[in-house]
Amino acid sequence: MKDTSRKFLTNTWYAAALSTEVTDSLFKRRLLDTPVVIYRRDDGSPVALHDRCPHRFAPLSMGKKKDDCVVCPYHGLAFNSDGKCTHNPHGGGHIPAKAEVKSYPLMEKYGFIWIWMGDKPADPALLPDYSLLDNGHPNALAHTYMKRPCNYELITDNVMDLSHIDHLHGEIITTRGQLSPQIPKVEDENNEVAVRWEWEQTPPMLIFNDFLPKPGEPAAHFVEVTWSHPTHIQLTVGATQDGSAMDYDNTVSQYDLHTCTPETEYSTHYFFATRRNHNVEDAEFNKIKIESMHGAFEDEDGPILDAVQDQMETNDFLALDPVLISSDAGPVRVRRILKSMIEQESA
Amino acid sequence: MKDTSRKFLTNTWYAAALSTEVTDSLFKRRLLDTPVVIYRRDDGSPVALHDRCPHRFAPLSMGKKKDDCVVCPYHGLAFNSDGKCTHNPHGGGHIPAKAEVKSYPLMEKYGFIWIWMGDKPADPALLPDYSLLDNGHPNALAHTYMKRPCNYELITDNVMDLSHIDHLHGEIITTRGQLSPQIPKVEDENNEVAVRWEWEQTPPMLIFNDFLPKPGEPAAHFVEVTWSHPTHIQLTVGATQDGSAMDYDNTVSQYDLHTCTPETEYSTHYFFATRRNHNVEDAEFNKIKIESMHGAFEDEDGPILDAVQDQMETNDFLALDPVLISSDAGPVRVRRILKSMIEQESA
Amino acid sequence: MKDTSRKFLTNTWYAAALSTEVTDSLFKRRLLDTPVVIYRRDDGSPVALHDRCPHRFAPLSMGKKKDDCVVCPYHGLAFNSDGKCTHNPHGGGHIPAKAEVKSYPLMEKYGFIWIWMGDKPADPALLPDYSLLDNGHPNALAHTYMKRPCNYELITDNVMDLSHIDHLHGEIITTRGQLSPQIPKVEDENNEVAVRWEWEQTPPMLIFNDFLPKPGEPAAHFVEVTWSHPTHIQLTVGATQDGSAMDYDNTVSQYDLHTCTPETEYSTHYFFATRRNHNVEDAEFNKIKIESMHGAFEDEDGPILDAVQDQMETNDFLALDPVLISSDAGPVRVRRILKSMIEQESA
Repeated sequence: MKDTSRKFLTNTWYAAALSTEVTDSLFKRRLLDTPVVIYRRDDGSPVALHDRCPHRFAPLSMGKKKDDCVVCPYHGLAFNSDGKCTHNPHGGGHIPAKAEVKSYPLMEKYGFIWIWMGDKPADPALLPDYSLLDNGHPNALAHTYMKRPCNYELITDNVMDLSHIDHLHGEIITTRGQLSPQIPKVEDENNEVAVRWEWEQTPPMLIFNDFLPKPGEPAAHFVEVTWSHPTHIQLTVGATQDGSAMDYDNTVSQYDLHTCTPETEYSTHYFFATRRNHNVEDAEFNKIKIESMHGAFEDEDGPILDAVQDQMETNDFLALDPVLISSDAGPVRVRRILKSMIEQESA
Repeated sequence: MKDTSRKFLTNTWYAAALSTEVTDSLFKRRLLDTPVVIYRRDDGSPVALHDRCPHRFAPLSMGKKKDDCVVCPYHGLAFNSDGKCTHNPHGGGHIPAKAEVKSYPLMEKYGFIWIWMGDKPADPALLPDYSLLDNGHPNALAHTYMKRPCNYELITDNVMDLSHIDHLHGEIITTRGQLSPQIPKVEDENNEVAVRWEWEQTPPMLIFNDFLPKPGEPAAHFVEVTWSHPTHIQLTVGATQDGSAMDYDNTVSQYDLHTCTPETEYSTHYFFATRRNHNVEDAEFNKIKIESMHGAFEDEDGPILDAVQDQMETNDFLALDPVLISSDAGPVRVRRILKSMIEQESA
Repeated sequence: MKDTSRKFLTNTWYAAALSTEVTDSLFKRRLLDTPVVIYRRDDGSPVALHDRCPHRFAPLSMGKKKDDCVVCPYHGLAFNSDGKCTHNPHGGGHIPAKAEVKSYPLMEKYGFIWIWMGDKPADPALLPDYSLLDNGHPNALAHTYMKRPCNYELITDNVMDLSHIDHLHGEIITTRGQLSPQIPKVEDENNEVAVRWEWEQTPPMLIFNDFLPKPGEPAAHFVEVTWSHPTHIQLTVGATQDGSAMDYDNTVSQYDLHTCTPETEYSTHYFFATRRNHNVEDAEFNKIKIESMHGAFEDEDGPILDAVQDQMETNDFLALDPVLISSDAGPVRVRRILKSMIEQESA
């Protein structure tokens, strides 16, 4: 396996797939520049193996699942879910001691399969608690997945600095110019970075307007993003017209998770989940919500980030000596923390 | 910005665009391996800026023009035509001192927008005088633009050595084998190189035949190309049957400008203009002339030059120890002068 | 010319083309990462020249054949079949001493044109004797050609280790699981490596079943592959139900030649010929045989080998520390011999 330790933090959890993407058959995805095959045992529990037979380096994902094992398409060697070779159909059937592939620890939670690709023991406590996604009506929860040809940190920057909303996005999430002038509050504790904006706008954000007591009238808004390593961002956004506490429970709001996994240094798997606390039974509304989130990124953020990637011609953003403004405080802090964690891990 | 000084001469004028290509909206072109956005102020004068916002490196060309400024598509920073940031919609609106992009000096002349990308002050006197293009009936002047996936010096070689005409091109500009046997006269003064061929042929070149006094009968011909740095070649070609002086004014002839601008080391913007002194009011003939010049290069020279680029696997032509023949005198002299100028500039 | 000596053995014969591919016109193929133009003299004998004019590096293959010479498309220099420039249409017509291209020794045999690209004199004795291909009814002989985006040694590995047959291929050549358990006999003499398997199966291989005395009943089978440098593999496979000697002459069998020529380090020309000793007049059967061989490689081996190439990210298979099993003895011995020959040649 390639040494990806300098490019990516590895002793941490990454989203490998949506739970719904992985079924009984072999699912292939490149993660941290490493080919991985993912499938489910007969009992439904997920398995991830290095997708490269140690014999002749064929992708196991081109083979077949058999009895919780993967059978290589080229010469028929079988590997169990621990990655050990359990069958060699050739000659006397002797299984060489080295005949194994790396098996990656997985956790399935919040509608995602999470993978641990580092060399230290997997630590379940390192995945933040996003159990709020699990609580509520099933029609008020949705997930999506996209892939973009840009470095994952550009997507982190994009979500950690929401001041771009009014400049880049269309009508449904406009703040009517109210968000940009705010200087966000940035907090940084235990290697987590939180950024929070509060403002008032009229009419309220169109995604909330119809569910507020007085549509079209002034409403207080907030949005808060919290980054945890390596690339998880929990975003809560809400509006209220009754002076209640500005949080998910007390406003008309939604609770989202954006999480990115590098495919390579120059391409990214982007996963997204959203939970809302209003109009919770409306399945059609749920479908529209996820489509519009998906569309906003595909059509608005995505093309800009791909172009930024092209213009940068490097992934070391800070080395390019960018001109920083007030809204950069959050994402720059995130870049510095992540850089330092990667350096510590590589040391 | 990348240091392109070793690859390209920079303190000189390059064609950035045809005048007709740049309008009120944002026009994007890579020049000398640098992204450039070009547009016109409300008064019509052209502006060229480095097409990379200094904040988050988004291409300004994806943004919008507003009041002679460019507004970045990502976070709304605005830059005026000098490249200074004039508006920051974020936080208190403070504009960081470093918030500016490079603005490139431009000149608009002869139907082209010329750009100066070097670090020394732009010197208008360094663009040769091609004002003959401006004199005459508008229907006797035409421009075109092409892009080729080869190094610009291969195109210079191609135009500076016209001995290929009878071998590569079709009927309308054939010299009936008369040009190749000539040893051209090469002159080299003040870093300009001129190459001139004279010959007689029957019938005359088909592009001139119908406009000569005695179509189909012998005519004296000349063609002269004059190279000036970095990649401008002025070509005059004409025919006469009355023993008059062999120049543009006294023959049935045309006066062309070929000028190349590197997009990258391996791709080239190729601009072309042609003025003629016969059949000057015929707009349909004008259209056919430019189409056939465009077609000759796209279909005949272009594919050969692209293939040469592939075969060379380098851009250092002379390092490949080519077998040189008499017709190479002009283009080789040009390569040596340009190389020396680039080395001087880089020193 | 590039120094390809470290990547490829050069003082040896490679298949450059099927005899049927090269006609009177100019045929272009990249061999050992070198552009080559191949054509036939008026007397039918084949010629191969470096496909790069020494003047301005245009591909000669874009030019025209004239009187057994090739005329460059760009400036009309002509080169004869020894690679010497014989005509310069420019200036006084002087031909510079250096004006020549490398001419490669060829041999035409067994339906192929073989090329010698090394610096030592071509040695016809170094091409093994495959004259069995020439003996028999014309309808019992067929050839094909394919190109694959993988290193040529991966194809050698594939043919030298046939234990993959039951795992990768479909019904018509299945051994019903009988071949994999065998430990093949490997012989290595004079830098040739032979691998042989023998087994019994019921029903017999479907390609032979209908031509055996008792279709559907048990039959003894054998397959033998013999590798010679650089990449020739002669494969004989047959079946018998009468206890006769297990060779081409005494069984229902076929005699094949697989030979590979690197296009580049990462792509390969794959040539194939097959001769059979049964149903020899059946032209339709002949057509089906070659189509099914072609199809098996295109649809079954090929995609696996391309994927292996991607997963390896190098061409040094042994450096990846593969887990080897009994069936690897043959191909690994081949890799070691070839590596040593290349190192000797480069020394």
